[in-house]
Parts: sequence; C-alpha cells; structure tokens
Amino acid sequence: MLDPASIKALTFDVFGTVVDWRGSIARDLGDYFAQRKPPIEADWAKFADRWRKKYQPAMERVRSGNRGFVKLDVLHLENLRENLAEFSIAGLSEAEIDHVNRVWHRLDPWPDSVPGMTRLRKRFVLASLSNGNVSLMVDMAKRAGLPWDAILGSETARAFKPQPEAYLRAAEMLSLAPAECLMVAAHNSDLHAAAKCGFRTAFIRRPYEYGAIKKYDLVADTGIDLDCADMNDLADKLGC
Amino acid sequence: MLDPASIKALTFDVFGTVVDWRGSIARDLGDYFAQRKPPIEADWAKFADRWRKKYQPAMERVRSGNRGFVKLDVLHLENLRENLAEFSIAGLSEAEIDHVNRVWHRLDPWPDSVPGMTRLRKRFVLASLSNGNVSLMVDMAKRAGLPWDAILGSETARAFKPQPEAYLRAAEMLSLAPAECLMVAAHNSDLHAAAKCGFRTAFIRRPYEYGAIKKYDLVADTGIDLDCADMNDLADKLGC
Repeated sequence: MLDPASIKALTFDVFGTVVDWRGSIARDLGDYFAQRKPPIEADWAKFADRWRKKYQPAMERVRSGNRGFVKLDVLHLENLRENLAEFSIAGLSEAEIDHVNRVWHRLDPWPDSVPGMTRLRKRFVLASLSNGNVSLMVDMAKRAGLPWDAILGSETARAFKPQPEAYLRAAEMLSLAPAECLMVAAHNSDLHAAAKCGFRTAFIRRPYEYGAIKKYDLVADTGIDLDCADMNDLADKLGC
Repeated sequence: MLDPASIKALTFDVFGTVVDWRGSIARDLGDYFAQRKPPIEADWAKFADRWRKKYQPAMERVRSGNRGFVKLDVLHLENLRENLAEFSIAGLSEAEIDHVNRVWHRLDPWPDSVPGMTRLRKRFVLASLSNGNVSLMVDMAKRAGLPWDAILGSETARAFKPQPEAYLRAAEMLSLAPAECLMVAAHNSDLHAAAKCGFRTAFIRRPYEYGAIKKYDLVADTGIDLDCADMNDLADKLGC
C-alpha cells in the first residue's frame, strides 16, 4: 500500500502520459499542410507514428555511449528529415522544417491532465521527468497551461530514461529521497525503471495513445503501486 | 536601446531582486524564536546580515575549484552553524537548525514582484537564474506564488554566478541565444557578468535590501540596458 503522506513530489512522464502526441501531431500538421501553398496531403497520424518509432533507437545511440548527449529537439529533427524522405515529401524550406519539428512543443494535453494536475499541485511538488528538453517542455507548458513546479528530466540530468541517472538526478534536485517521489507514467517500462531507483509508481491508463486501442500497457503491471484511469483518478487516490 | 521584440526570456536573480531576504528572515526567525520554549532573543535582522555576509566567501571556495559543487542549502547550513556560535545561540536540536536553515525557502517577495512578473509572463518565458538550489526555489515559489516557467541557475549549471557557465547554460537550456535573454537583477555585478556572456540587462532598484538605504547598487551602472523602479516598471518598459 502506498501512503500518500510518504510522497512529497510527483514526477511525470509527458509524451503519452500528460499530452496526446499522436492526435496533436495529426491535427497540427494536417491543418498546417492543408493551408500551405501548395498544400501537401499525407496520412499525418501515420506520419506521427513513424516519426515516434525512430525515437527510441535515436536515444539508444546516446544511452549506449556511441554519441554524446544531445537535446531531443536535435534527435526529432534528424528523424523528421528521414521521415519526410520516407513519405516522399520534398521541397520544404528550412523554416518550414523547423516549424514542423516544433510540433512537439505544441502538443495538447489529454482532457483530464490540467484539471487533475491542478488538484495534485495543491498538495505535491509537480515536476516533469521527460526525455524532452527544457525549452520543449517550457513551450508546451506555456501553451497548454501545464502547472509544473519544476522542469526536470533528460536535459538537466544529461541522461535519457530509462537510465537510472535520469530518475536519481531528478530526486536529488528536488532534495528528496527516491521513495518520496512518485513516478507517473502511461508506460510500465518507465515505471519499472523508476522503481529500480527507489521511486514509488503510478500508472495512468492511456489506451488510445496510438489511436486504436493499444495491445500492451493497457493496465499497470504487477508491482506498480497505483493503477489510475486518469489524472483525476490519481488525485482521488492520493486524497487531493 | 533595447528592443523588447528581441527578447524571448527573462532570467531573474532572486535573493534581493525578487524576494526580501533580510526582512523575511528577521520576521520569520523573530516569530519562531519568540514562540520557542524557552524563547531566544537576538537582533534577527543583524543575524540575517551576518549570515548573508558569509555567502560569497562560501561560494568562492567552490568557484575557485577548492571544493566541488554543493547546493546552496549546504553552504547556508555550514554558515548558519558559524553564525549561531557567533551569536552565542546554543542548544538547538538538529530539527530546529534544519527549520532555521530552511528560512531561505520561506522568503517573501517584494510587493511588486508577483504582480509585475505575472504581467511579464504573458509575453516572456520567466526563469530563475539564482545561486539557490532547485528545491529551495521550488519551495519558495510554491509558498510565494512566483510564476516561474522554469527553475534554472547554479544547480542546473553546477556553477555559481558570476561564473559564465551559470548564465550560458541557462540560455542553452532555454534554446536561446544569450542576446535573446534579459537578466534581471538588483545588483550591478550580476548584470555586468551576464552582459559579458551576451545577455541584455535590466536593473531593479531595491534600495532597502539591507534595511537602511544602500550605499551602492542604488541605480543601474552605465551600460545596463534598463533601470527600473520595480517589476511593474520593468513590465511597463517592456510593453507588457
């Protein structure tokens, strides 16, 4: 059993957990390229899926030590160029490519995220613990009204999750023991990695992260402390 | 002339610029020790002054390389123990000493800080760029309602101002050129160091930072971009 009084801070995964990256990218790029002259047509949800699929391999090159730490914006841009080629989209200016790459700064929260987090923030410190870089998280939070107390994660730790440094450095910056931190994520692997570092864990169900219902990560694995329908359910379970 | 359109983020010195450390410490410790059993009497404003006086020499040992980076909380605690001895205050428990040390987490903003920063935040990214550690800044912001978009500064840079790394790493984390950042401080030396790194600069007049009117840092030195009466004046000057 998790005693809410033992928790001081909530650290959040962001892509998929707090924001709907796939739906947001499909909407944003769909509108942008429809209004472009000349317009460009594509299956933008599929474009988002393929772009996201290049995410873990790109970070893995950094995690494995084959490449020094770089911001996720840089990895996103490299992956975007590949993706554009694969979708046979050519002729974009560098300014257009930059605008498209920054779609990750313009993601919309799931409907329960801001209300649930606003309740949680009254009692706990809320920090992002994302592989996204600081400026990406700042732009996203300002646009979406995400109520962070601190932006932490890969860039402040200079390590990508699930490397232990990413979690441990966040706890250290909050001047907390890992057991005083509750990692909140829609992905069991993220929570298992946090738990190995001593964090407590809360799963948020996001069955439509990939559009159609997911085949995995539908519910919390055994050993995860809390299994929550959404952020409001997490606030309920923590007595906020 | 500073063109407000060239600025994307405001980075703030905090102790003295955003919050009234001396008045806050005098009030907080005065109340705390009056209610203690047995009570302890002292000139708590003088206590604050002496404590603060140990601040630069303690950081200098880190800046000079004679000591690895440590959080300001650690330096404050060491300096507090010395200060208690100098004021002949003995017999405090470790829990009491910890509570007293955390008075830096409980500082009150100057009256114009929250209203002025709230105006500024609508147009600019607001980040702390303080020598205070992250958890100190988070606790202070939550208690005082400071509207930060990001907590940056010494701990994220692992360097104390006026070391160039402290400023440059903040700009880098915001994904901005230094010239897109406006350093806001009540101390000319902080602004000169930021300007050397390419930041634009705004002085905030805090004549009563040390109680009686200061003998220096009353107005902006030559070369500082903006000389402001307070945060609302800065918001006016930036067209917010």
